[in-house]
Formats: sequence, structure tokens, C-alpha cells
Amino acid sequence: MEQIENATEALKSAFRRHASGVCIITMNDPEGNPVGFTATSVTSLGSEPALVTFNVSRGASSWRALKDVKYVAISMLSQESLSLAKKMSEDHSKRFLSDDWFREERHQIPIFKNVNAILICEVKRFVEVEANAVFIVSVESGLLTEELPSLLYHQRGYVIPGERLS
Amino acid sequence: MEQIENATEALKSAFRRHASGVCIITMNDPEGNPVGFTATSVTSLGSEPALVTFNVSRGASSWRALKDVKYVAISMLSQESLSLAKKMSEDHSKRFLSDDWFREERHQIPIFKNVNAILICEVKRFVEVEANAVFIVSVESGLLTEELPSLLYHQRGYVIPGERLS
Repeated sequence: MEQIENATEALKSAFRRHASGVCIITMNDPEGNPVGFTATSVTSLGSEPALVTFNVSRGASSWRALKDVKYVAISMLSQESLSLAKKMSEDHSKRFLSDDWFREERHQIPIFKNVNAILICEVKRFVEVEANAVFIVSVESGLLTEELPSLLYHQRGYVIPGERLS
Repeated sequence: MEQIENATEALKSAFRRHASGVCIITMNDPEGNPVGFTATSVTSLGSEPALVTFNVSRGASSWRALKDVKYVAISMLSQESLSLAKKMSEDHSKRFLSDDWFREERHQIPIFKNVNAILICEVKRFVEVEANAVFIVSVESGLLTEELPSLLYHQRGYVIPGERLS
């Protein structure tokens, strides 16, 4: 085994070998403008009650909206969402220019059409750790679309699930 | 789109469409006995400093060890770790019976041989939320083995990454 003593290098090398499902997280900023970003850190925290966590950098362009937000939508992406995943991780001023999103009725959260599933969530709290934050949100309801192969991030690129082992 | 009003059903349906990398987390209990479990919630929280989070149920068999533990090893699994992933999510009394693990030198944490990468981590804190906990750990060092296709959990089974889209 190759030993890596530098913690940052160790983390980067190990996570290059770890695949993650790709989501986008969307919300409104305090002025009501749509905000969103791509996240590979979405994970379930428990099903009863239904809780989800995700991690963000407090230096991200979405932080100003996130730190005061009450409701967010978490969308699970599919192979058809590839361009959306890329758009939502690039120039933040260009993320909502096309006609590929709408606002859901209850909280007016912006959501994109071309995704596999959407969870409407209420922010319970966030925990600041160094320059980052862990968000803990509770699920309020969900939307399912036609299911397509899930989008994964792996080895610095996008892939879909392959051979089933078990 | 199909609307799901029940929060637990919404969470389960959405996460069925979300793929996750599979890890095992190992440690010693207060008596020095090896403890470990399969986790699909491991995610990076930041690279400088190198931080990782994972989520657990406080009702899990490993909770007694976890709640007081100082060091854990997080191992990223590969397609060759399939039987390990299954073993570490079944009867906890049978997880360390074979000769497929050893103790690393510095903290004597039990680690398994048949994995893709290992992060040696110090527990910084955990946050209790309902019947669950979010662990925040800092990476101390890493070990890399020969790289094999990563193990994923998706649609209630194990898969490996498939077609690269980008």
C-alpha cells in the first residue's frame, strides 16, 4: 500500500476513487431571485423523520442565499441532466437564463424539469466547520419524473451506473 | 410529474434514484475490540483542512463504540470488496472473524486489505439529529492500494461505474 502523509493529498486521492450521485440544490435568495448549484454531497440522514444532509463551502456564490434560506429543492440528476449539472457548477449569473425551470406552487422554489426526482425540503439547521457548512434539512414532499439512469461524478467526470454485481 | 406527499415515501423514492459510493468505517471499541460497518453517506466537507462527514443511526450496533471514538478509518470499496460490503452490513459478531484485516501502526485501527483507499481520520465532533448523528472527522493520512472499479450502491443493490458521459 502507498502511504500518503499529507492530509489534503490523501483526501483528494481517496475521493478520486469514490463515486457520488449528482444533485442540484435550488432556492430563492432574500430578494426572490433563483439560486442553485451542483452538489455531490447529498446523503440521507434518516427516513423517519425524513432527513437529508449536504455540505457546502461558505465561500461559494450561493452562500449569501443559503445562510438565511428556509426552503430548498434537492434534485437527483439523470443522464439527461448532464448539461444542467455542468451549467449549475459554472458561471452563477447564467444558471437560470433558459426556459428549463419553473417554480413549484407551495414555496415558489425554482426547480428544473430535466431531473430524476425532486425533494422539497425545509432547512432545520446548519453546522459551520472551518470554511464549510453541513446543512441538515427535513423532507416535506417529493416529485418523481420518468426514471432515467442516474448521473454520477467519478474520477473528475460524469458517468452512469454500469454492471450490477448483486 | 408524480407528487408524493408523504415525506418518508418521498425520501425513499428519490434516494432509490440516487447512487452512492460505498465505504466501510472501522474503529476500536472502548475495550479495544474491532468494530466496523458499511456506510453510503461518506462525503468530503473540504480539502484544506481535509474534512469528511458521514451519517449514522444512533440505534446501530456500532453506536456504543462510535460515540466515544477518537480515530476511525474510512475505506473506499472496490468491486473486489463486494463480499466485505455485505459482511459489514450483516451480523456484527461475524465481521472480524477472517484473516482479511490488520491493524495500522499509528492508532491500531483495524483496516481491511481488499479496498481501494483508506483515510485515517480523527473525530472532531458529531451532531445529534433525531435518532441519528452526523460525524465530522479530519483526515490525518491515507493509504492507497491498486485501483479497481469503485463499488456503488444503487436501486438496492451493488453496481460499478459504467459509461463515461463527460
